[in-house]
Amino acid sequence: MGWQEIVSRALVRDIRAVSRLISIVEDRRSGFEDAYAAIYPHTGKAHVIGITGPPGSGKSTLVDKIAAEYRRRGKTVGIVAVDPTSPFTGGALLGDRLRMQRHSLDDGVFIRSMGTRGHLGGVARATSGVVDVLDAAGYDYVLIETVGVGQSEVEVASLADTVALVQVPGLGDDIQVIKAGVMEIGDVFVVNKKDRPGVERVVAEIRMALDLAGNVSGRSRAYSGHHGPTGATTGTVDATEVAPWRPPILQTMAESGEGVAEVCDTCDAHMHRLSEDGALVERRFRRARSETMQIASDLIWRGLADDRRALDAAEELAWKVARREMDPYAAGWSLRELIVN
Amino acid sequence: MGWQEIVSRALVRDIRAVSRLISIVEDRRSGFEDAYAAIYPHTGKAHVIGITGPPGSGKSTLVDKIAAEYRRRGKTVGIVAVDPTSPFTGGALLGDRLRMQRHSLDDGVFIRSMGTRGHLGGVARATSGVVDVLDAAGYDYVLIETVGVGQSEVEVASLADTVALVQVPGLGDDIQVIKAGVMEIGDVFVVNKKDRPGVERVVAEIRMALDLAGNVSGRSRAYSGHHGPTGATTGTVDATEVAPWRPPILQTMAESGEGVAEVCDTCDAHMHRLSEDGALVERRFRRARSETMQIASDLIWRGLADDRRALDAAEELAWKVARREMDPYAAGWSLRELIVN
Repeated sequence: MGWQEIVSRALVRDIRAVSRLISIVEDRRSGFEDAYAAIYPHTGKAHVIGITGPPGSGKSTLVDKIAAEYRRRGKTVGIVAVDPTSPFTGGALLGDRLRMQRHSLDDGVFIRSMGTRGHLGGVARATSGVVDVLDAAGYDYVLIETVGVGQSEVEVASLADTVALVQVPGLGDDIQVIKAGVMEIGDVFVVNKKDRPGVERVVAEIRMALDLAGNVSGRSRAYSGHHGPTGATTGTVDATEVAPWRPPILQTMAESGEGVAEVCDTCDAHMHRLSEDGALVERRFRRARSETMQIASDLIWRGLADDRRALDAAEELAWKVARREMDPYAAGWSLRELIVN
Repeated sequence: MGWQEIVSRALVRDIRAVSRLISIVEDRRSGFEDAYAAIYPHTGKAHVIGITGPPGSGKSTLVDKIAAEYRRRGKTVGIVAVDPTSPFTGGALLGDRLRMQRHSLDDGVFIRSMGTRGHLGGVARATSGVVDVLDAAGYDYVLIETVGVGQSEVEVASLADTVALVQVPGLGDDIQVIKAGVMEIGDVFVVNKKDRPGVERVVAEIRMALDLAGNVSGRSRAYSGHHGPTGATTGTVDATEVAPWRPPILQTMAESGEGVAEVCDTCDAHMHRLSEDGALVERRFRRARSETMQIASDLIWRGLADDRRALDAAEELAWKVARREMDPYAAGWSLRELIVN
């Protein structure tokens, strides 16, 4: 099967073709740019939801239940499960297979697991193409599940229309500190395992952090921060017409499914709001800009690697830096000249 | 005080000057490249040790005790404490102050805390200049302490001569999975809180993972992986002359100081081995190359941002991508042309 046939089958959600197309895009096999160009016009329709939380928060179960709820509503769902901490796909693949079994009779759900450690540029970079394939294939929702460990949540936020942050009572103070750092990217907060002691404390802490963030920025929180100000660029909507989105704090028991329908409702409401006040256009522009810049940057370095003379010069510069004959900035300027002119 | 005076004072370890120089380098204030160029020839003398572990592993205490032990041996120590998960420096600063008090009468220890969330390029990028300032200021050891949460350990490994991975019994399976992914960067393993139940299991697991990694790569583990093969490039030493470094697994009680001297001895032994077999030169070349490339890349993008015409063109490309009129790769190629020619 040539890539043209893979693409046309993937566009009608032939699961084997979708799977092969993801591999092509993921591995950047030769000719993948043509395949990507062919599917790209069909993207932009899916609602991309990033779901992130610390290890042990039950977020995989929650993602499964959210997928099941959307299926119940007649929607199709693609899931990209990312574990940026593991270069070993063994664990992920095993989990994948177990999860696949649960949805195995349902071709309205597609699950793909991936590790991204060592992947230059991290989660967003590795995941972006996979999300686009699922989007083009016509899945109504694309859920990106990632472990909340450091930069990965922030990166995943750059891809998602809606970011749901999963928290859980009783993970100890160290974990709470980690959470503090990602407050600003949450559009929806989910406190899972709500039967555990300490649930009120977690809810109160989130509320406090949200209030604090709101006060600090002095702007509509939900659309500020990494997403940048809204409306200013698109200019289609007067920001004052729509009340600012205040991230709701929901409580769930993913195991039993309690509260999951509300999570789905809230994500939908958030998407509705994004479309309404022009922020969706802005978010998607930012994603497009960062991807375009990233790709251009890759192409520049790839060009360098293919140019023996430039590559030798770059290595020589690095040796001078290593020997302290030149400082890294002087070397950086020289390398820049080598590339730009 | 002009930057020249700050630099000359920092080079003789005037603590206020060191602190100000770090701020200049960290914030990339105007003229910082001159200051950096002035100190850079004085770098390369410190033994840089990266110490990383999961939240709750007691690694801050361990770092403090390692610093104290080196002080006892008449050495000076700079500490860079990195929490990549927090954009709020409040917590870090508070901890800093508490730790500073412990060493406050000793100007042979310098501590700097930093958050790096949202810092483009992550831990290595943000920390690199700080490490260089401490190195130039004449600290014998620079300890980089970072929370083991995802990519940060791997990044910190790119700066360090020696990487010590701190583990701890009883953190549960999720954490163990995270650890598995960073095995390959460890030069020294430290199992802290060795009085806890499960310590033998952790030691056995590390040993097993090391054996596995050794078998998979079929090469000397310690100098393979991200550090690349040794000797081949430098060619000064026959690799067969020196037995491969097998990462030792040490047990400590950081609180009481038990086992800390052994950790120091082992780090020193590792540095001795690196110098002996030529791997140090190789590691430092790799660090220099990645920094030079990173800086050149920054300069290229900065140049774009300063060029109104190019910037407009880049934004227009991104809008086309966002509107699905162009795919990201086509836009990336166009943007590349804009920059390279």
